[in-house]
Amino acid sequence: MPIYTAPTKDAQFILHEVLKITESSVPGYSDLESDFTGAILEEAGKISTEVLHPLNMVGDTEGCTLENGVVRTPKGFKAAFDQLRTGGWPGLDMPEQYGGQYMPYVIGTAVGEMFSASNQAFTMYHGLTHGAASAILAHGTDAQKDTYLPKMITCDWTGTMNLTESHCGTDLGLMRTKAVPTDDGSYKISGEKIFISSGDHDMSDNIIHLVLAKIPGGPEGIRGVSLFIVPKFLINEDGSLGARNGVTCDNIEEKMGIHGNSTCVLNYEGSVGYLLGAENKGMRAMFTMMNEARIGVGMQGLSQADAAYQNAVEYAKERLQGRAVTGDENPDGPADPLIVHPDIRRSLMDQKSFTEGARAFLLWGSSMIDASHRADDEDAEGLVSLLTPVIKGFLTDQGYDMTVQAQQVFGGHGYIEESGMSQYTRDARIAMIYEGANGVQALDLVGRKLGQDGGKHVMAFFAMVMEFGKTNKGKDEAFDRDFLEPLKAASKDLQAAGMYFMQNGVKNPNHALAGSSDFLHLFGHVCLGLMWARMGLAAREALEGGATDAAFYETKLATGRYYMARRLPATAMHLARIESGADTVMALDADQF
Amino acid sequence: MPIYTAPTKDAQFILHEVLKITESSVPGYSDLESDFTGAILEEAGKISTEVLHPLNMVGDTEGCTLENGVVRTPKGFKAAFDQLRTGGWPGLDMPEQYGGQYMPYVIGTAVGEMFSASNQAFTMYHGLTHGAASAILAHGTDAQKDTYLPKMITCDWTGTMNLTESHCGTDLGLMRTKAVPTDDGSYKISGEKIFISSGDHDMSDNIIHLVLAKIPGGPEGIRGVSLFIVPKFLINEDGSLGARNGVTCDNIEEKMGIHGNSTCVLNYEGSVGYLLGAENKGMRAMFTMMNEARIGVGMQGLSQADAAYQNAVEYAKERLQGRAVTGDENPDGPADPLIVHPDIRRSLMDQKSFTEGARAFLLWGSSMIDASHRADDEDAEGLVSLLTPVIKGFLTDQGYDMTVQAQQVFGGHGYIEESGMSQYTRDARIAMIYEGANGVQALDLVGRKLGQDGGKHVMAFFAMVMEFGKTNKGKDEAFDRDFLEPLKAASKDLQAAGMYFMQNGVKNPNHALAGSSDFLHLFGHVCLGLMWARMGLAAREALEGGATDAAFYETKLATGRYYMARRLPATAMHLARIESGADTVMALDADQF
Repeated sequence: MPIYTAPTKDAQFILHEVLKITESSVPGYSDLESDFTGAILEEAGKISTEVLHPLNMVGDTEGCTLENGVVRTPKGFKAAFDQLRTGGWPGLDMPEQYGGQYMPYVIGTAVGEMFSASNQAFTMYHGLTHGAASAILAHGTDAQKDTYLPKMITCDWTGTMNLTESHCGTDLGLMRTKAVPTDDGSYKISGEKIFISSGDHDMSDNIIHLVLAKIPGGPEGIRGVSLFIVPKFLINEDGSLGARNGVTCDNIEEKMGIHGNSTCVLNYEGSVGYLLGAENKGMRAMFTMMNEARIGVGMQGLSQADAAYQNAVEYAKERLQGRAVTGDENPDGPADPLIVHPDIRRSLMDQKSFTEGARAFLLWGSSMIDASHRADDEDAEGLVSLLTPVIKGFLTDQGYDMTVQAQQVFGGHGYIEESGMSQYTRDARIAMIYEGANGVQALDLVGRKLGQDGGKHVMAFFAMVMEFGKTNKGKDEAFDRDFLEPLKAASKDLQAAGMYFMQNGVKNPNHALAGSSDFLHLFGHVCLGLMWARMGLAAREALEGGATDAAFYETKLATGRYYMARRLPATAMHLARIESGADTVMALDADQF
Repeated sequence: MPIYTAPTKDAQFILHEVLKITESSVPGYSDLESDFTGAILEEAGKISTEVLHPLNMVGDTEGCTLENGVVRTPKGFKAAFDQLRTGGWPGLDMPEQYGGQYMPYVIGTAVGEMFSASNQAFTMYHGLTHGAASAILAHGTDAQKDTYLPKMITCDWTGTMNLTESHCGTDLGLMRTKAVPTDDGSYKISGEKIFISSGDHDMSDNIIHLVLAKIPGGPEGIRGVSLFIVPKFLINEDGSLGARNGVTCDNIEEKMGIHGNSTCVLNYEGSVGYLLGAENKGMRAMFTMMNEARIGVGMQGLSQADAAYQNAVEYAKERLQGRAVTGDENPDGPADPLIVHPDIRRSLMDQKSFTEGARAFLLWGSSMIDASHRADDEDAEGLVSLLTPVIKGFLTDQGYDMTVQAQQVFGGHGYIEESGMSQYTRDARIAMIYEGANGVQALDLVGRKLGQDGGKHVMAFFAMVMEFGKTNKGKDEAFDRDFLEPLKAASKDLQAAGMYFMQNGVKNPNHALAGSSDFLHLFGHVCLGLMWARMGLAAREALEGGATDAAFYETKLATGRYYMARRLPATAMHLARIESGADTVMALDADQF
């Protein structure tokens, strides 16, 4: 069975030595002393490794079942869910008013990574609930908040998000689900929704579905979409559960992975629904949560990559196969461990430098969410809005590739389900697709976010990178050469790509959009380069300060040097592709394919 | 259900207009007139689409079962196997003396791609038989050939290859399976072999296992390995089947994909085995087949990519979602088809330019196998030996990535097994692993093949690329700019990488091996660049000659231009990684991971 160790020490390093969160003026951050966050992360790590991780393969193997209209989760899920609930984890960053602990989002992310890494399919049950509760928190009436939030924050009731229909995923303006107003102010919801994660199950007393639907006679397309609360069981005036609402699970989808999560086809037949937010403003209500939801999916990319990586390392140390080309390293054994081989190293270093860089990127992004929500910092809000498609698209594309690399270290054993390595790739695959497929992220980045507020946020990003270089240059020649110069070169590639879009995208927007996925990846590499430069700096400072755990910081520096030397050169390739423009991309007529 | 159309026209273009096979002096090639090969490919395409393809998802869903010691293949497999057998397909390129048709290997490859694309798991049953028969053909005594080949070439008996044991895959010197000589000249084979594709099943009367084992008292390690023929049923003097031999299937592995193929754990308990070739020369016997086997796996990479691509194109044309940024292209419909979106195009062009380039590469490589076998062309043998790890590693790595891209075009529907797109990625995944994991291919390329015969073959490759450029330059400015110049630049990157290895690998071999996977990919891109330049040239000549099907050739040129502009820039990135050397790769001690 695979192993998993929660990356507590690494998260602590990022929070306290790189982001230095307690020095931030964001409300709530001054409480986040190292001992305190350490204790939370230790506890979350314990639940991850002892409770969630042992159920990961069980969930994959058993999957969810639908029998006589009842959906059952895999054996052990319900008890684990109760344990999570008892520990108060689902409400970690939710308002105290409704029973949460109101911890900053950055802590929620650090904890969420561990939960997701140990069991992604399981973590989606409370993850989706968190998303639905956030929507009610942002757009609900006081009465709605009082009715739903206390139960949802404890996960006594769970939540779902219902967007997709069989003929429309990205283009929600095409949706057909209807919401007909009734005399009592509620609506009758009718239609079929598909791909509903955690759509039905046996782990909570009630399920609160948030459903996008169109009110007949409203505006055409996306402007006529509204959001509704549709509980599985209606709620009586006294808060107790009433009659079953008209929503049924018709089918559980057979998927490539995340089998432990019940991905349902939900059928609404005149179900009672309550408007959430304003009529025809359903998409706006969804959008307010989108940054967080997308960052959460980016986190899944990291989480599966890290879990897979840990197993690849373990296997590479234990599996004896072949001899080091530079001389036997295990002369008394029948062969050397895999880890002596340079190409295995290359693969492990790809994985290690990605996961640690990604973790920093994710926590940095999460800290900007906090600054935006808790301190109304508009610059932080703008920057994280720009970076959100990068976090989602880059971390899930690359995270998936890393699970494939980790699986490859196992050779034939990685292809056998017993090793658990196939599950990591199959589970990681979904993150490239849901919450906006990565092509849509690239479109959002290039088509919308780059030019947002007159391009102010991307300019701020470039200024930040430049400022970082200027401030830290000239103190240590090796650091300049290994970190600052590669970062500068990569950032120049990113600027050149942006310039290309500006100069050519106006004449023909296809010149920008044909390079959108390359731009997203180019941007992602620069962000991880920046993270590694910041981590390298923090590590150097710790070493100069006489840190006792020198090996930890030396390892950080070496891993950072790897990223800068071996991964950042991808930026030039992405730039070359971008600068080749749309002509070769759009040359063929559809029937020439 | 997925679709599949056999790429007959494209294969014909490569065989006759690019490789111009009938002009070759290789014995047998002059018979390969276009009408003749066209008829073969049409027929193979028909069986692929009508018989094998409909069973592809069945095989994935049902898998193979082991009950009371009997292995059963999925419903319909046996009837399809009989049909293939009746058509004489398994013996297509086998000697006439044993019942084959002795067609060139290049035709076997073109046909094999279609079979594999329509049903990889199924095609492995006769594919492995082909490999085992080739080994007997190359190393068997006349009596062995007479006993086994006629039955194996018709697939009345199928074959397997038994190398791996649970503790050794790549490093076969560690193997424990024993072969004890008996008085009658046969051996008693004892041991457990794992990952045996087509290891047991219900589609043939007998199964001829080729088993690597050690004769006690022989040399240590890999030099003490011999190869044995171990039939499932012993064969009586009159050729009829006798008693059951002591080999049993203990388990069918649960795998990520190729569920339709029975991957068995085989247990040999004093089984009767017959030495094939010389004692302790088992690895040499395996090696003679390795080039072909690896080219066959490279073919699988292409085949899954092409099948997945065809479905992605179909979906992109049919699925209506969003609007073209340059104006509605389906104004009367609710939305435009996906194919209008630049990033979808980019993905489809990545796939298309890969599959067509890969097909040319594969058929070119196969033609060199023919030149080597049929005309004793040592240069061809040396060059294809150099390129074999590139064909295997590059085409399966990239082929896998392309199935992932094709799946991505489907959005959420691609993650649902019903669409069939997950199966393409899961089936394609194995080709990166078996027949030598791709890291081992990279090691073979850089550690062995580059320097083979004093580096003669890689020099010949460079000379060929240079000669191609010189011969064809200056006739058409656009062709020079779009094809020859990018090819030259990419080839220079490859030369620079080779030079780096020469200058640094001697001091420290890790400097070469740390860049081996990058080198393999760099080499692969240059090969596909060369293929596209050759195809582009052929297309231009056809257009200048007034070809009636101008659209076909225009499409070729446009697709080639895409590859040169958008894919070849990867060579510079691989070179940068290679030139960063081994220092960052090998910096950490094992316990720092």
